[in-house]
Amino acid sequence: MHNIALLIIGDEILTGKFQDTNSPWAATRLRKHGAALTTIRTILDVDSVIAENVRALSDSHDFVFTSGGGGPTHDDVTMAGVALAFGDRLIENFTIMSVLRERMGERFTVSAGQMAMVPSRAELLWDEGIWFPLVRVDNVFVLPGVPSLFRAKFEIALQQIGTTAIYSKQFMTQARESIIAPILKDAAQRWPTVKIGSYPQYDTKPWTVTVSMD
Amino acid sequence: MHNIALLIIGDEILTGKFQDTNSPWAATRLRKHGAALTTIRTILDVDSVIAENVRALSDSHDFVFTSGGGGPTHDDVTMAGVALAFGDRLIENFTIMSVLRERMGERFTVSAGQMAMVPSRAELLWDEGIWFPLVRVDNVFVLPGVPSLFRAKFEIALQQIGTTAIYSKQFMTQARESIIAPILKDAAQRWPTVKIGSYPQYDTKPWTVTVSMD
Repeated sequence: MHNIALLIIGDEILTGKFQDTNSPWAATRLRKHGAALTTIRTILDVDSVIAENVRALSDSHDFVFTSGGGGPTHDDVTMAGVALAFGDRLIENFTIMSVLRERMGERFTVSAGQMAMVPSRAELLWDEGIWFPLVRVDNVFVLPGVPSLFRAKFEIALQQIGTTAIYSKQFMTQARESIIAPILKDAAQRWPTVKIGSYPQYDTKPWTVTVSMD
Repeated sequence: MHNIALLIIGDEILTGKFQDTNSPWAATRLRKHGAALTTIRTILDVDSVIAENVRALSDSHDFVFTSGGGGPTHDDVTMAGVALAFGDRLIENFTIMSVLRERMGERFTVSAGQMAMVPSRAELLWDEGIWFPLVRVDNVFVLPGVPSLFRAKFEIALQQIGTTAIYSKQFMTQARESIIAPILKDAAQRWPTVKIGSYPQYDTKPWTVTVSMD
């Protein structure tokens, strides 16, 4: 099972001005794909801080997903931080540059052109539904902060790392836990790949037990 | 300005089964009190992992607030992790034990008694409105995960570290930014402790400018 770290880059979350919706979404998605999210770090938008955390998480986890940076300036700091983490430098990518020019037309500016700067070792992953490539450096996937874009690229990253879909089922019963326990134990022995849990709720009347199977 | 780290201990957040509401609440609260939240880490409920993160964050920040652990068993892992971080060991605290016995009466069990195990160097902070003390070890405050309890103890920790309340005011205007800019600039020079920001909204009609003062 893959061991994943999530690195959320964003001052606006640390000041409480925006709520991080990418983490809970990614947590659920990773669990359903049989990958273990073991760390989430939310950090400041500073290249040296990003570099230090990318380095540490890349060493201790199978894969790292970063999220953050909305505009061209922010993306720049994130890419600079990722490059720094791997002792790499930013270079202008001509494919991205031409996509930017084509897409933005007359709205293209030098500042927008900063988005074409990526680490020299970066692997660019193109896919339907995204116009800007998913940037991968070693075991690190660099994702945007905007939730809709984050989700689209997250799916591409999931395909890259190769996961196993997990099917989950939950049901509720009013049978006592002591009665169903031997039945669940028997089921767990018979189907060892199924993870079975039972969670009694004592604050409802009548008492119920939720049984989950993954 | 104090530099704060938040350490969220909770497998249930990493699996996406529960959403972390303590972090956004704490982020807003810290900003209003003039303290800078610079890191949030969400980690697994394992004593060695807790120890490693408490150690690292305690070294790099003025104060660390931990959140997590609902039942007696979980509290035990958190306390063990915090003790380990400081090369300390858990000892039974007699005051907590007697409070537990008194409060739980016949429901008291050996397992519940685990809650009285705290690091030997811990400072116990009692206050109105909490029946279980706030545990402090060095610059680390150990807070519970349950939101209502987290908030109550958070306020006590804030008093401990000494913060300055920040008053914020926002208002909207339809005046052009170019017209109000010199007025705001003048105000910023006259009152240097007031942080003034202006944020134009171009996606509304008529265009408006939000001015914030902290």
